[in-house]
Amino acid sequence: RNLVKHLLDEGWRVQAIVRPTSNCSHLTDLGENFSLYTHNGSINTLIEHFRAMQPSVVFHLASLFLSEHQHEEVEPLIQSNLLFGTQLVEAMTQAGLTSLVNTGTAWQHYEGCDYSPVNLYAATKQAFETLLQYYIEARGLRVITLKLHDTYGPDDPRPKLLNLLRGAAASSDALAMSPGEQLIDIVHVDDVVAAFQQAAGRLTAGHVADHECYAVSSGCPISLRSLVGEIEKILGRSLPIEWGGRPYREREVMVPWQGQELPAWHAHVSLEDGLRQVLAI
Amino acid sequence: RNLVKHLLDEGWRVQAIVRPTSNCSHLTDLGENFSLYTHNGSINTLIEHFRAMQPSVVFHLASLFLSEHQHEEVEPLIQSNLLFGTQLVEAMTQAGLTSLVNTGTAWQHYEGCDYSPVNLYAATKQAFETLLQYYIEARGLRVITLKLHDTYGPDDPRPKLLNLLRGAAASSDALAMSPGEQLIDIVHVDDVVAAFQQAAGRLTAGHVADHECYAVSSGCPISLRSLVGEIEKILGRSLPIEWGGRPYREREVMVPWQGQELPAWHAHVSLEDGLRQVLAI
Repeated sequence: RNLVKHLLDEGWRVQAIVRPTSNCSHLTDLGENFSLYTHNGSINTLIEHFRAMQPSVVFHLASLFLSEHQHEEVEPLIQSNLLFGTQLVEAMTQAGLTSLVNTGTAWQHYEGCDYSPVNLYAATKQAFETLLQYYIEARGLRVITLKLHDTYGPDDPRPKLLNLLRGAAASSDALAMSPGEQLIDIVHVDDVVAAFQQAAGRLTAGHVADHECYAVSSGCPISLRSLVGEIEKILGRSLPIEWGGRPYREREVMVPWQGQELPAWHAHVSLEDGLRQVLAI
Repeated sequence: RNLVKHLLDEGWRVQAIVRPTSNCSHLTDLGENFSLYTHNGSINTLIEHFRAMQPSVVFHLASLFLSEHQHEEVEPLIQSNLLFGTQLVEAMTQAGLTSLVNTGTAWQHYEGCDYSPVNLYAATKQAFETLLQYYIEARGLRVITLKLHDTYGPDDPRPKLLNLLRGAAASSDALAMSPGEQLIDIVHVDDVVAAFQQAAGRLTAGHVADHECYAVSSGCPISLRSLVGEIEKILGRSLPIEWGGRPYREREVMVPWQGQELPAWHAHVSLEDGLRQVLAI
């Protein structure tokens, strides 16, 4: 939704592909340059729609994220992260569309490896790139994959770290956390959105021959303990964290992967400014 | 079915995992060491079954093969080649099973590349290996992937090359073929079956640390024209082939990939012996 609003502000016409069951309450009152397309699962309908619409670029942000999956979740992971994406690029190439901005994760690179998945979610992201290779070589698709680290920003509905810490700040109950020595790389959503726009420009300018992958990094990894220290400094009081109250995750990422940065893009929002905004100080 | 019969002959107990809709007419009268397990799609049931049964090795040969897919076939390709396989290894590792013989294709290596898919089918095979990496690193799964070239043998129901040529031999109608200069690597099913057994032995002997990939090659690629020449020599007459009557396929493989051979395995059936058997001469 942040990308949609930014692109509309920049004068783009934007259509969001959603499911019949999607909650679109954050995609209302966006003006005449915005529309919704409800995908009912039919690839034929999607092809016809793309043929008629001819978007200059497709942003693929749809994903099921699970940090640790249960065995019943194998099926929804494959359906969301492999089946839908493959139908999307099949439909694109059938309709003559060639520019895709794809979303990956730094977790495809456990311990800095070329490929080592932190979890099955990350493996599905890598498997999707593997499938993309066919469309790139045989169908002329051009792709930039932006590999995200943690993201944050205002009005974030996800139960992620900063929301947990905000909750802890508002409570006197202790929040059990890992020992907290892991470095994390959190990027403000405004910077993430700028990276997606920059990638789209690079594709439509014809600068991409096949598949380019870039990291979307703050450039400033910080330990979890230091991050909490920053928040405590801003709030002027300490948070009730019980460090070591829970173990590190299996395959916890202690040092984030450092990948190549997208040309002509750099994170601009400082951690202090971003935290002040999120903490509403 | 060839693998099942061979393993039974070697004294194994074998269970075939099939679908409710599978045609099992070639899996009858196999004796008390053979059984069928009908997989209804439930991963919970499969996990319980594996927990109770504790097979020493799982052979994964299930696959949807499509040399050129239609857009409606993206979904069955993903379901057969990614979803089922992932549920299989999820269930295996939940049940403490660690030995998998997986089936890949030489078509993952167009023009001899480390990875370049000939078609979307080959891309799904590579994507499955990508997903396996998670189970190997995080769950202790041990895998040998055997990458098959073309296979042939008696009673082959598939509408593949040798059956087309047998049909041409029995007919006076011209069979339109490509110019026929492509090299093909056809391996007799007895050799293929021996490779699967050898791979299983290597896994159960503890020789596999993570994931090993091997080519299952005849060692003797031959041009399509020369193959037809061999058949004509055996039959003592010429086949009504119209060379160049159809174009090469898009991304036709002109020179087959040469991969590392499985240790202690080598193709034994000579092309002449194999062809005589298939042609029933």
